[in-house]
Amino acid sequence: MAQKIIFTDTPARALTEQLDELGCKGALTIITDSNTRRDCLPLISGDSRIDGAGVIELEPGDDNKSLTSLSEIWNYLCCHGATRHSVIVNLGGGMITDIGGFAAATFKRGVRFINVPTSLLAAIDAAVGGKTGINFNGLKNEIGSFAPACSVIVSSAFYGTLPRTELLSGYGEVLKHALLDSPEALGQALEFDLSEADPALLSGILENSVGVKRRIVAEDPFEHGLRRSLNLGHTAAHAFESLAMEAGRTEPHGIAVAHGIVVDLVLSHLNLGFPSDTLQAVASFVRENYPAPAFDCKDYPRLIEFMQHDKKNTSPDAINFTLLRKPGDVQTDCIVSPEQIKVAFDIARDLLGV
Amino acid sequence: MAQKIIFTDTPARALTEQLDELGCKGALTIITDSNTRRDCLPLISGDSRIDGAGVIELEPGDDNKSLTSLSEIWNYLCCHGATRHSVIVNLGGGMITDIGGFAAATFKRGVRFINVPTSLLAAIDAAVGGKTGINFNGLKNEIGSFAPACSVIVSSAFYGTLPRTELLSGYGEVLKHALLDSPEALGQALEFDLSEADPALLSGILENSVGVKRRIVAEDPFEHGLRRSLNLGHTAAHAFESLAMEAGRTEPHGIAVAHGIVVDLVLSHLNLGFPSDTLQAVASFVRENYPAPAFDCKDYPRLIEFMQHDKKNTSPDAINFTLLRKPGDVQTDCIVSPEQIKVAFDIARDLLGV
Repeated sequence: MAQKIIFTDTPARALTEQLDELGCKGALTIITDSNTRRDCLPLISGDSRIDGAGVIELEPGDDNKSLTSLSEIWNYLCCHGATRHSVIVNLGGGMITDIGGFAAATFKRGVRFINVPTSLLAAIDAAVGGKTGINFNGLKNEIGSFAPACSVIVSSAFYGTLPRTELLSGYGEVLKHALLDSPEALGQALEFDLSEADPALLSGILENSVGVKRRIVAEDPFEHGLRRSLNLGHTAAHAFESLAMEAGRTEPHGIAVAHGIVVDLVLSHLNLGFPSDTLQAVASFVRENYPAPAFDCKDYPRLIEFMQHDKKNTSPDAINFTLLRKPGDVQTDCIVSPEQIKVAFDIARDLLGV
Repeated sequence: MAQKIIFTDTPARALTEQLDELGCKGALTIITDSNTRRDCLPLISGDSRIDGAGVIELEPGDDNKSLTSLSEIWNYLCCHGATRHSVIVNLGGGMITDIGGFAAATFKRGVRFINVPTSLLAAIDAAVGGKTGINFNGLKNEIGSFAPACSVIVSSAFYGTLPRTELLSGYGEVLKHALLDSPEALGQALEFDLSEADPALLSGILENSVGVKRRIVAEDPFEHGLRRSLNLGHTAAHAFESLAMEAGRTEPHGIAVAHGIVVDLVLSHLNLGFPSDTLQAVASFVRENYPAPAFDCKDYPRLIEFMQHDKKNTSPDAINFTLLRKPGDVQTDCIVSPEQIKVAFDIARDLLGV
């Protein structure tokens, strides 16, 4: 699972170097969506292999991370002479790096791929760590595989013009990594001014945050143990996203994660004595910076159903959570009853001011 | 890629032991086809986990190793509460172990599976070695992944009532492994009387033959080098199968391999000086025991097109073969021109008496 992560201001040059390193002479395919093709493809152009590459353009949006799109990618590769020695460049947000990585991992039993995440969230989450996949049957990432990109090119050049929602979405994962790391990292993350995000400061936070994920993944690439700590906030977050998908709404992943973190910290407080003042500090940060969560008590049964489908569960009846004793002190595989989850939803909504 | 291969006369008991070893308490799904469900499922019954398992029954036949069937399996697992801790038992020939293994490898990014091959060919080829996949766009195994079964249960109990075609099909791979192993192994394989196959003798040959594959796969699980030697006979075989599929005929894999081996030995003779008498001995064995190949010179261009799509190729124009200097002395990645392939087809058809 060796995966090179390159932080750079000049993504075009970094990509050229990576292609050279892979011995890629051509036979290159770029997977992207219509937005990132327009806004980000120019930022990696200049190399003849990139400029001459075949381009697969998907419609943006997580509901296109589907079997239909996957089948289109496979079909394109088949019909355009891709071989097992071809290289795929995934240029886009998490939707593109997830589906593009899975397509690459399964075409002719695996071709090499490079991720170029163009959103803060993808840089910090989807594009690093080797998880790939698609949504299936209304469930997020239900089908997929562990397949690391050969390299991931992380560049602030892509994040200069991010809409505020994208910034918030990425920052949800920053909060998670800080909580997993230490009280100091959490303090630093909560001090950052999201309303006037300073690019240089953000670059530094991003590099530290990716470093936390990288260390955890290196110790447990296939999620047999420690890696499950990265699921902090995600049991609830995935349920929020599935609920939104069902209602035809879009819920940015990192925003769902920010809300999910508050739910998980409530459960951590109830079950493991997570300090109440730290819970309040995180909840205040989320309440002040993030939109309010869009669920109420009549959604609880459906949210619980979604949670029962979560990949982390050890049996169909049990719902597993990653919880914390305090920042940096993680307990994975905590089984929580549906009743207590409903209580935590109530408290979390209260803390988030809804 | 640790994979346990168990040779046994009592597959039901072996399966129970494997389920115990995996700590499987239930949540078991069996993937099978209508034939193997009827003929082979009774041979593994007795354990409550098996008798109470959910059963996914596919239609038999390689054209059902499709995205449609794969999607059905994923859907069944989704709707029947399978978790990441579930276990899947693939009970069938290579079609079932290929598609079932791929479904297991990709459902929730991978659940554990046990292969119980019910044909000689699957026992010797598809079920061992960790290759999984489906056909796509008319191309064999175009989509898939490397994912080893936790264990493979090989039992002569399933092969007692094999139709002759199945025996011949399996024996194609026996010939291949013998050629890769040594002149002695080849001699032994050619001495075996296929018209009155002695079960005890066959069991011994099977165990040796699986051993050859196992040694090669252990050294190179992801086919970066040595494992490509297992492609002996397969560049042509896959083209024969694709041609048959296109014409609506069924070409058993091992029979295509037997014909493909003769083509590859002709190419080995032309390019690497493979001994002419050994080539003649193998060709005689195939001619005497196997049906004649069903292609003629007007199929050559289409066969070459299929070969150009082979996963082994390093570029869209080059066609790669695994060839031999002599039995046990392999040269992978030999590029052969379409013109020479046509010559080899002519000579092979001549040697095979068509």
